[in-house]
Amino acid sequence: MSQAATSLSDSTPQAIRGAFLDFVDDPFYVAASESVRYIPDGLLVFQQGKVLAFGAYQDLHSNYGAIEVTQYSGKLMVPGFIDLHVHYPQTEMIAAYGAQLMEWLETYTFPTEAKFKDADYARKIASFFLDELLRNGTTTALVLPTIFPQSVQVLFEEAQRRNMRIIAGQVLMSRNAPDSLLNDAETAYGQTKEQIQTWHGNGRSLYAITPRFAITSTAEELALAGKLKREFPDVYVHTHMSENLKEIELTAKLFPDCKDYLNVYEQFGLVGDRSVFAHCIHIDDSAFQRLSEAGAAIAFCPTSNLFLGSGLFKLGQAKSSQYPVKVGLATDVGGGTSFSQLQTMSDAYKVAQLQGESLSVFKAFYLATLGAAKALALEDKLGSFDVGKEADFIVLDLQATPLMALRNPVPHAESLDQLAEKAFAMMILGDDRSIVATYVAGNLASIPT
Amino acid sequence: MSQAATSLSDSTPQAIRGAFLDFVDDPFYVAASESVRYIPDGLLVFQQGKVLAFGAYQDLHSNYGAIEVTQYSGKLMVPGFIDLHVHYPQTEMIAAYGAQLMEWLETYTFPTEAKFKDADYARKIASFFLDELLRNGTTTALVLPTIFPQSVQVLFEEAQRRNMRIIAGQVLMSRNAPDSLLNDAETAYGQTKEQIQTWHGNGRSLYAITPRFAITSTAEELALAGKLKREFPDVYVHTHMSENLKEIELTAKLFPDCKDYLNVYEQFGLVGDRSVFAHCIHIDDSAFQRLSEAGAAIAFCPTSNLFLGSGLFKLGQAKSSQYPVKVGLATDVGGGTSFSQLQTMSDAYKVAQLQGESLSVFKAFYLATLGAAKALALEDKLGSFDVGKEADFIVLDLQATPLMALRNPVPHAESLDQLAEKAFAMMILGDDRSIVATYVAGNLASIPT
Repeated sequence: MSQAATSLSDSTPQAIRGAFLDFVDDPFYVAASESVRYIPDGLLVFQQGKVLAFGAYQDLHSNYGAIEVTQYSGKLMVPGFIDLHVHYPQTEMIAAYGAQLMEWLETYTFPTEAKFKDADYARKIASFFLDELLRNGTTTALVLPTIFPQSVQVLFEEAQRRNMRIIAGQVLMSRNAPDSLLNDAETAYGQTKEQIQTWHGNGRSLYAITPRFAITSTAEELALAGKLKREFPDVYVHTHMSENLKEIELTAKLFPDCKDYLNVYEQFGLVGDRSVFAHCIHIDDSAFQRLSEAGAAIAFCPTSNLFLGSGLFKLGQAKSSQYPVKVGLATDVGGGTSFSQLQTMSDAYKVAQLQGESLSVFKAFYLATLGAAKALALEDKLGSFDVGKEADFIVLDLQATPLMALRNPVPHAESLDQLAEKAFAMMILGDDRSIVATYVAGNLASIPT
Repeated sequence: MSQAATSLSDSTPQAIRGAFLDFVDDPFYVAASESVRYIPDGLLVFQQGKVLAFGAYQDLHSNYGAIEVTQYSGKLMVPGFIDLHVHYPQTEMIAAYGAQLMEWLETYTFPTEAKFKDADYARKIASFFLDELLRNGTTTALVLPTIFPQSVQVLFEEAQRRNMRIIAGQVLMSRNAPDSLLNDAETAYGQTKEQIQTWHGNGRSLYAITPRFAITSTAEELALAGKLKREFPDVYVHTHMSENLKEIELTAKLFPDCKDYLNVYEQFGLVGDRSVFAHCIHIDDSAFQRLSEAGAAIAFCPTSNLFLGSGLFKLGQAKSSQYPVKVGLATDVGGGTSFSQLQTMSDAYKVAQLQGESLSVFKAFYLATLGAAKALALEDKLGSFDVGKEADFIVLDLQATPLMALRNPVPHAESLDQLAEKAFAMMILGDDRSIVATYVAGNLASIPT
């Protein structure tokens, strides 16, 4: 994507016509008829990377008659997917065999991440990773790099080349890992501070203070992370919590004064409305309540939770009316098994079914769009087609394979009920082949094949 | 696939060179070094649909110098997958939302199956279904049609057009379903008998006496099924068992004199060495032991068991040394979510991981090849590259997507350890795109795209 092309399309208004799906409220709490916005024949007008107008074609087209319209017949446009938790250095070790979390980290993850000291290598993988996100319709992600500042820098540089809104931050690790992946807490504090000043709010980049998890940080390091959060309150906190029983046991041993896992992060001032905790599988009512009250968010990673045998996330409880917690969907590659948020929704459905709950396609899409945007406090910028938001969106093919075409012989839906059925089949059967086009800030992304 | 083409290639010996994987024993009980046969540079020679020679290229090529050799470099050849339990009429209703077994049957399945009274419609779906199997590398399946004799007939006819070894039989249902799907038990007995005489052993077709499950058959009908089994002892029995808790509860009510679900089938003489029971999720030690002693088989359907929230199959117990039960892998479409045995293996891995067990790629491939052949008592004909077996095999691409190519930068494995890692990544990340070619009885299948 050359600068010239970007500038050209930025300055000229563009329009897309077709069927659009997004959300105006949370379908976990509000009936689909009130929370889902489905426009069977809609028009999206955007300019300079932002939505200029959005609505029914018949209402808008006379106002925008001069603009060239790209029509996607029989397709479905939705906001770009947001991946709320993913490790870019683990891209190449996805699908590693035979272990649960702690052994998997030692055997596969740590040796792989050590390679990211080499900035050229890191750039190669970062570049592949971002293209893979786009290939799967993911336009924004909350990403873990490694402990190496250069692994953060190349990720932001490559994201900016693609004009993608990526949130990331140097991984903080000061104990319980191989020496090659440990950093001095004070050094990491200084590096993080410098990176926040360089990257947070630079273009579309945003920064997250990223202690890996309680086990790999000393109390000193978590205290410095808390200090950073106080110094830069609008920066994110991104970490893991309560994924695996052995991890929880070890955390309890390392922090004997904390009443539970969440309390470790609470004690260091790391739990607030821009904190994202990945997994949260084995947490109790009290922790759900405290997360709710703090406005913190959970990244639900179903393919990973199944692949690593971590357990079943209690989505129903997280989205209770009494103590609602913000939840977004996440692939968690390389513990997760796919970059596709469609495949991730499919596994989310399975996780819910095993608990006797049904995850509707609207709830699932919400978790990967507006729900995740809210989890990131970015609902003013991302997650729906509202006027003024950034024009990150994707074009979905409900007939991407012969089987999907048989299942959805007529791809276009006239009603919300029809859409629910057709889109659900796509969510269960679909993968990257369903992503016809990915638009990033109004520009059609060019993705290597 | 024209008759002429079939005859031509049948009479001329053909050879394939490349890397081959199959099994000479069961990797659940015998170390991979003794049970897995991996030939990094092998030669497979076949003629008239059967394997003529198989071994290392260097050992064989001088004997077969005159034969034209097709080389698949960087690919992996394995025996054709066997799908041990799948419903062809449910192809078009795969991925139906929001229910567990009993409601799912009523809401989606029964209305769909009623359409198969129309033979033309049934043929259209049977044709698509068989092509979809081939697209996914599945060359043999144990299939449920519907209660309509014509739905059985068109399936066998379409399978014979493709020369596929398909096992099926008219579904027996005489109660607890809509009237349109009920048949008189005596009538069904007569129809089944006639079909057995027509189809069992006709070409590659084989017949299975197929009571849907205990709930939809009266005691009279199960008794007639048992009578058929005594009259035709080498015919299969194919049914469901212990998939869902509500189903089990209702079965217990309907058959109060039976000590458990399996005992219903036992009482009617339906449990033997050609009996295949799909699911068997909620069965106890006694049932595992009795299945083992009877030589009966279980079809393990992980994508379905997750999708319908049925539960986690105890594969470790089924494959115990004390009471080993034959197990084969099955997609169970339309309760299952994919025709791909690779995706089915991936979900099988997840089901095992949730129970703290790891399913190696060799065990997984065994369940879909030689293990399933043994479950069908067809290990003399199918499931490996042994000389004299039928030449059903597939060519796998370990680099079928950009992500898979990154994960497996060098597709060719020299050692068993290398193969285990590479093939495992394919099993987790792969789908129909990994199936480069499907050979049915020595002929390259032509599959619509």
